[in-house]
Amino acid sequence: MDITDSIKESVRALQPYSLSPDRAGVKLNQNENPWDAPPAIKQETLRRLTNRAWSRYPDFSASELHERLAVFSGWKPQGIIAGNGSNELIQALLMVTVAPGKRVLINEPTFALYRQITTVLGGDVISVPLATTFSYDLMAMQAKISSAQPAVVIICSPNNPTGCVVEAEDLEALLEAAPGMVVVDEAYFEFSGQTAVPLLRQHANLVVLRTFSKAMALAGLRVGYLLGDPELVREVAKAVLPYNLNIVSQTAAEVALEMYQAALLPLVQSIIGERERLQRALSDIKGLLPVSTRANFMIVRSAIEPRRVFAELLQRDILIRDVSGYPMLKDYFRVSVGTPEENDLLVRALKEVFAPTE
Amino acid sequence: MDITDSIKESVRALQPYSLSPDRAGVKLNQNENPWDAPPAIKQETLRRLTNRAWSRYPDFSASELHERLAVFSGWKPQGIIAGNGSNELIQALLMVTVAPGKRVLINEPTFALYRQITTVLGGDVISVPLATTFSYDLMAMQAKISSAQPAVVIICSPNNPTGCVVEAEDLEALLEAAPGMVVVDEAYFEFSGQTAVPLLRQHANLVVLRTFSKAMALAGLRVGYLLGDPELVREVAKAVLPYNLNIVSQTAAEVALEMYQAALLPLVQSIIGERERLQRALSDIKGLLPVSTRANFMIVRSAIEPRRVFAELLQRDILIRDVSGYPMLKDYFRVSVGTPEENDLLVRALKEVFAPTE
Repeated sequence: MDITDSIKESVRALQPYSLSPDRAGVKLNQNENPWDAPPAIKQETLRRLTNRAWSRYPDFSASELHERLAVFSGWKPQGIIAGNGSNELIQALLMVTVAPGKRVLINEPTFALYRQITTVLGGDVISVPLATTFSYDLMAMQAKISSAQPAVVIICSPNNPTGCVVEAEDLEALLEAAPGMVVVDEAYFEFSGQTAVPLLRQHANLVVLRTFSKAMALAGLRVGYLLGDPELVREVAKAVLPYNLNIVSQTAAEVALEMYQAALLPLVQSIIGERERLQRALSDIKGLLPVSTRANFMIVRSAIEPRRVFAELLQRDILIRDVSGYPMLKDYFRVSVGTPEENDLLVRALKEVFAPTE
Repeated sequence: MDITDSIKESVRALQPYSLSPDRAGVKLNQNENPWDAPPAIKQETLRRLTNRAWSRYPDFSASELHERLAVFSGWKPQGIIAGNGSNELIQALLMVTVAPGKRVLINEPTFALYRQITTVLGGDVISVPLATTFSYDLMAMQAKISSAQPAVVIICSPNNPTGCVVEAEDLEALLEAAPGMVVVDEAYFEFSGQTAVPLLRQHANLVVLRTFSKAMALAGLRVGYLLGDPELVREVAKAVLPYNLNIVSQTAAEVALEMYQAALLPLVQSIIGERERLQRALSDIKGLLPVSTRANFMIVRSAIEPRRVFAELLQRDILIRDVSGYPMLKDYFRVSVGTPEENDLLVRALKEVFAPTE
């Protein structure tokens, strides 16, 4: 017997999600916070853990963290689940809604994991291309919702990798039209100043996802959270594994929330300022056309093949993301906004790569 | 619209998995290592993390940890995946194999999560009761495999909550008979001295699961691993989320493996010794009948209602597990083996509870 016979057809047909293992001193490929978690957050986390036995399971439910997330987000603690990164919560959400024959509507290009998980679960991915300006094509989404009646609609806002957002009034129209759940993945919301959370009160079919991997500077610790109607959250929780969040990450997330205003918000504001500065600097380079963004990264149209730009920058110890394999993005690469020094190094290196050679 | 309409029928019908939030000074309810992770392991873990940015994602694949797990377990690194607790790996395994109409064969009583996840995924759970002696009923399992043709067979060995193991020759017969995958959950194997790993070479349909939550004393950090044929592992990996293991847990697991012989094995040996001592002491109490076990816990038949024993012990600051709701275990509670002092406190308290009152 071929052992992979026991694997579902939909899974066998799937390409694994992967990332090139390149390393570089200037790392602008994963939309991380370019500053490390502030020392005050790290120290306080370790202090609180001093008397905690590593051999004991975490609490069955991370209720203290849920309380703090409620205050931070302005939503009810019973409507919140924290997870091992928001990836885990996307997965749980899709596990309780998707089965063979069910449809999930996404936009394209967008974060690759929505398609990956839906496919593993045997569901059908229906996709709507972004408008040519890289904004959401609301009319096309409405039409597709009406014709395909998807069990779940997923909107990444700001969208990875294009940086576009969905406006509240457009989202409301989608929430009214959708026959099932509408998930807004707000992994980058802190950089956009825009959130769907106020709509939760009126729309029981809205779910908001967030992460500690970007503005919160804790990508290494894997924490995400989900906000939704408590009744819905109770159902999603059935697919969230017990003890999913380890004691260190749980504690670090609590501390990060307590210190957000003082220690993290200034970093977010500086990243937003750098984003505008970087966009202007890239616009000035002949052969490059950066796309306006509400996130901590941007896609850039490149007159030189993105794969070559990637390689040239890697030689200069700078790692970016070649997104030319994504739909619509054949001529684009993506860069995360770094520290001022990192952005200067990026701009200088790109000037070299794009210098007229005559 | 009732929003829970968008939730799959199989999920709505499911009771959430939960655990009573009681706390006590002597905690014998979760089969944890009663000693904390040794200070040398904690210190070395924190030392290695000193220069690691929390804001950066973990490596895409935990390849260093996989290498060390290969040495520890005697299996190939390409046939290993580490996860956020073995729970996550059970889930990934079932995600790639189970769909509506597929069957998963388990024994009962056993660990509750196998049924929970299979049900969420819309699969059918087929169960075989343990023999009345609480050993695996191999003939009944063979018959059920032959009649139900399950996509997956799951055997917990040592079994939670009964402590029985599957012998290698019996397992081989099951591996030959099963039309799909056979998963052996070895969460407690270090306490039994018995493992299915040598059978991996001959049986591509065998998968072994293990955890750092028991012998390795890292339940709070959530690390588990899966061993199997590399071709099979490649398929399972498609359902494992990227960056599933945070940097702290990954590092702690590496250090625990390096220091296992010196720092953890002596604890395991002492727990095995205490298990035998505790079993004898409980046998001497009139009204109690402990069941022989190969794990770090045991079920105990009780002449007093288990719920009442639980409450009486909780009053004495001792937390045990009331397993009377499990099939076959109406008259049983479960205790983890603690430190010598904890076991003495348990025995003394049970003597009070079971003292003749006239």
